[in-house]
Amino acid sequence: MSLDTLIITDVAPRDGLQNQQIPVSTSAKLRLIQLLHEAGVTSIEATSFVSPKAVPQMADATELMGEINRHLPHLRASALIPNRKGLERAHAAGAREVAVVLSATQTMNQKNINMDLVTATKICEETLHAAQALGLRTRAYVAVAFDCPFEGPTNLDTVVALAERMHQAGAEEIVIADTIGSASPGMVKNHFERLASVLPIKKLAAHFHDTRGMATANAWAAIQAGVRRFDASAGGIGGCPFAPGAAGNAATEDLVLMAERSGLTTDISLPGLLKAVDYAESQLGRTLGGRSIAWLRRQYAADKTAS
Amino acid sequence: MSLDTLIITDVAPRDGLQNQQIPVSTSAKLRLIQLLHEAGVTSIEATSFVSPKAVPQMADATELMGEINRHLPHLRASALIPNRKGLERAHAAGAREVAVVLSATQTMNQKNINMDLVTATKICEETLHAAQALGLRTRAYVAVAFDCPFEGPTNLDTVVALAERMHQAGAEEIVIADTIGSASPGMVKNHFERLASVLPIKKLAAHFHDTRGMATANAWAAIQAGVRRFDASAGGIGGCPFAPGAAGNAATEDLVLMAERSGLTTDISLPGLLKAVDYAESQLGRTLGGRSIAWLRRQYAADKTAS
Repeated sequence: MSLDTLIITDVAPRDGLQNQQIPVSTSAKLRLIQLLHEAGVTSIEATSFVSPKAVPQMADATELMGEINRHLPHLRASALIPNRKGLERAHAAGAREVAVVLSATQTMNQKNINMDLVTATKICEETLHAAQALGLRTRAYVAVAFDCPFEGPTNLDTVVALAERMHQAGAEEIVIADTIGSASPGMVKNHFERLASVLPIKKLAAHFHDTRGMATANAWAAIQAGVRRFDASAGGIGGCPFAPGAAGNAATEDLVLMAERSGLTTDISLPGLLKAVDYAESQLGRTLGGRSIAWLRRQYAADKTAS
Repeated sequence: MSLDTLIITDVAPRDGLQNQQIPVSTSAKLRLIQLLHEAGVTSIEATSFVSPKAVPQMADATELMGEINRHLPHLRASALIPNRKGLERAHAAGAREVAVVLSATQTMNQKNINMDLVTATKICEETLHAAQALGLRTRAYVAVAFDCPFEGPTNLDTVVALAERMHQAGAEEIVIADTIGSASPGMVKNHFERLASVLPIKKLAAHFHDTRGMATANAWAAIQAGVRRFDASAGGIGGCPFAPGAAGNAATEDLVLMAERSGLTTDISLPGLLKAVDYAESQLGRTLGGRSIAWLRRQYAADKTAS
């Protein structure tokens, strides 16, 4: 990886769809993932092995993972796992990459998974170790890393300490997540400069939501701090069901456009992404798209007609 | 001015309204300006002394300037002037601050004012000198400073040279304008680092449009390069009638929110800005607002009800 390449993990199939009221079929999810892959996206958060009762949209995790392995054997397809049981299900389904989620505040862990922060941290570490023992690639989220919907501003020392714990537990990528979309570029600069002083920057990723219209500015601040790995979702689909006030994810097309216009590469095709957004719109029955979508649609209208 | 204070010139009454099809009355413009001033905006681009035939929306420039001087004697109210004749009209109307516009490419000057770049530069210099002789405060725009709709990428050397010429001609503020909203934060960083190496950064201002959804990221890149003066328009109203593909201006509320969340101050009230946006909506009969407007409206719903 050149320092001038952004690696984007498209989280539309998981973080994007998880909160959508309209059920999306397994074949439609596979099609969306295929379109993203065809656009040049090499890393996708595909599904989540959580309780189907809690998140009905992810009830087909085993089936979808099987389809991905059959049709897209070279794709980095990540599966979210809440614990060891989730890991076992993910492994049985053939997942090659899993992600654990650790919230950085007491209350968020209590509300989300009914555990205190110490226990949640320990569970994540154990799950990471178990995943590695199975030969799986691992990611670890540090959620509500800027603000918690219940506690307010998150303590940066805690965020740094938890990120270090996840790093020591072997997570190959540590995703610093602005779960409720409250971060500003000044906060992002401060967070990642601190994190980069104790952790290898190439292992850090940034995950933003566009709630306050600052996702793109935040991504730029992270890039300037040396971050090259980002979560984003095609069309900006998304939101966290457990975090009041959360809105869509940073849109993949916005990040790709900003990166390419700023001299970085992503190897992701913007017309290809638009096809994926079009497809997601047809499945969800509503208009999607990041901040640049109107301009992109005008710009690539000719390509679309020709294809 | 502290280095941690952003000075925002709200251009909604001029750049914002200029391109709107619905005629806005002089009293409505004054009301919008009053609401912006009440929100804490201390610098406003109020009108433009151009040909009423070319820009009918600005035909009331003389009357509006009189009203502003009567009702808001302490407001920095700037008037755009195309040439000496515009200056004379602005001065006769009581304007205390005027702005000249110099496009950074041959073709844009030809299309916009039917002059070559050398002549346009000379006219701007003469107009600045004449304005200063009259005791007026002056701003100079360097337009299409990133890309020209006719010529493509603008030569940065030319932008720097023109900005220097405007500085030498006494312009108290030189506004680097992304007229068609094509700039990226990488380009902004590059432009302002170069400009700051030859000009005092405190005299430079940045003017962005949100065509490609990057206005906020661009503003952050400019802030990081040391820029503290910005143009923006409440509700993101705007667009340039002579530049194909241009969209709304960077929204004042987006810049204020980003600045305040990033540890800078603006002395502008967000609930106050929302009142101005509401008023502009009532006059233009359509929904307005920057990228953060949905979140801001939810956030300040209580304040609005209470006021």
